[in-house]
Amino acid sequence: MKKTIILFSGDFDKVLAAFIIANGAAAMGDDVTMFFTFWGLNALRKPVGPQHKKSFLQGMFGGMMPRGPQKLGLSKMNFGGMGAKMMRRVMRQQNVTSLEELMREAKDQGIKMIACTMSMDVLGFKEDELIDGLEFAGVATYLGEADESNANLFI
Amino acid sequence: MKKTIILFSGDFDKVLAAFIIANGAAAMGDDVTMFFTFWGLNALRKPVGPQHKKSFLQGMFGGMMPRGPQKLGLSKMNFGGMGAKMMRRVMRQQNVTSLEELMREAKDQGIKMIACTMSMDVLGFKEDELIDGLEFAGVATYLGEADESNANLFI
Amino acid sequence: MKKTIILFSGDFDKVLAAFIIANGAAAMGDDVTMFFTFWGLNALRKPVGPQHKKSFLQGMFGGMMPRGPQKLGLSKMNFGGMGAKMMRRVMRQQNVTSLEELMREAKDQGIKMIACTMSMDVLGFKEDELIDGLEFAGVATYLGEADESNANLFI
Repeated sequence: MKKTIILFSGDFDKVLAAFIIANGAAAMGDDVTMFFTFWGLNALRKPVGPQHKKSFLQGMFGGMMPRGPQKLGLSKMNFGGMGAKMMRRVMRQQNVTSLEELMREAKDQGIKMIACTMSMDVLGFKEDELIDGLEFAGVATYLGEADESNANLFI
Repeated sequence: MKKTIILFSGDFDKVLAAFIIANGAAAMGDDVTMFFTFWGLNALRKPVGPQHKKSFLQGMFGGMMPRGPQKLGLSKMNFGGMGAKMMRRVMRQQNVTSLEELMREAKDQGIKMIACTMSMDVLGFKEDELIDGLEFAGVATYLGEADESNANLFI
Repeated sequence: MKKTIILFSGDFDKVLAAFIIANGAAAMGDDVTMFFTFWGLNALRKPVGPQHKKSFLQGMFGGMMPRGPQKLGLSKMNFGGMGAKMMRRVMRQQNVTSLEELMREAKDQGIKMIACTMSMDVLGFKEDELIDGLEFAGVATYLGEADESNANLFI
C-alpha cells in the first residue's frame, strides 16, 4: 500500500523521523510519496546553490534558513546548533543511520520526493537550488497521492 | 472521499498549510472536516470579542493569545511578529491567496469547521468570541468523522 | 477499526491531545496503538529511574529532559514551566481529566503503548527507566499497525 508524508518541518529530529518512516515503509514494499513544503524544503537545499535574483524578502528568508540536512537544528534543546551536533554524535555511537545516508537510501528505494511549488515561490527557492531527483508540484498532486494511500502523516 | 484535519497549532504557517490542504481537497470534490483544538482555536477568534467573566487564569490565557488570523505568528523565525509580516508580504508579491481569503473560501466551499468544546473550556473561549458558522463538539465527533475519511492529518 | 498515533512530541499540550484522542477512540470500541518516539518518550519516564551507565552525551540528554508527565512543558507560552502549571490548574477548575489519569485510563482500556527502541538507544533510555506495561519495538512494528488502521496521526 502507498504511504504519504507531508514534511512541513525543517527540524533535524522531525526530518529524521520522516525519512526513517519513509525508508521503513519502502523496505516493506510500500510505495512512498514525500511532499516537502515550507521549512521542510530546507532539507532539500544544496549547501551551495546557484545564485538567483530574488526579492529582498525572499533573499532574507533564504539567507537565514539552513541549507541542507547538515545545517538543520533540533526542534527542542538545540542550543544554537549544539543539540543537533550532540544528537548526530550519539547516533554515530549507536550505529544509527545518518540523515544524509537516509536521504540517499530514499532515492535508491524509489521514494517519490515532491517539492511544493507554492512554498518554493514564497520562500524564493528555484529548482536548481534544491537537490536532484525531485518532482515539483502543488497540493492537488499531494491530494491525489493521499487518495491512493492508507496512511498519511503530517510531520 | 472525506478528509479530516485536526488543527492543533495556532502558528500562521501551519494554519495556512491546513487551509490550503482543506480548500484543495474541497475543490477536488472531497468533504472536508476541520477540528480546531488548543492553539488552533486562536485562528477562529474575533479580533474584538464580547466581554465575558472568566477565571483569572482563563483571562490570562485569553489576553496573551492572538485574536484571529491577523495576529498569528510564524512557528519559526517569527522575530516578534516581523517574520509573519514578511511572509504575508511575500505571499502578496507572489499572488498567493491570503489566510483570511482562504478562511472565507473554506466557508464558501462548505468545509465543516468544528471548535473543540473541551479546549474552549480550558482556554475560556465562549461561542460568541469565535467567528460565525462553526459547529461545537468534542473528540467523539472528530473520531466519527475520521472513521468516514481516507486521510486524517494532525497539524 | 484500529487507530495509530505516533507521539513524537514531549510537550504537555500535545501529549494531552494524543491521550484524549486515544482514550476517546478506545471508548468507542477502537483498537488503539500509540508509538512513542524521540521527545514523546519523556512522557513515559519514571520520575526517579534506576541508575545506568551511559555515554556522556546520553547522560546530558537524559539529565536535561523532563522525567514523566508531571515535568512536561507547554509547546507555547510555557514561561519556564509556569504555563504548564497554569494549564493544569485550569483543567482542574474545568473538571478536565488530568494527563496522569488519562495515562492510567489508556492502560486500563488496553491501549497498546510501544516505545521506539531506536529513539531509546539515541537518548540513552533503558527499559526499566520507563513506566511498566510498554512494548518495545521499531518502525517496522509501527508500520504493521498502521496498515491495519483507518486513521494514523503524527503528533
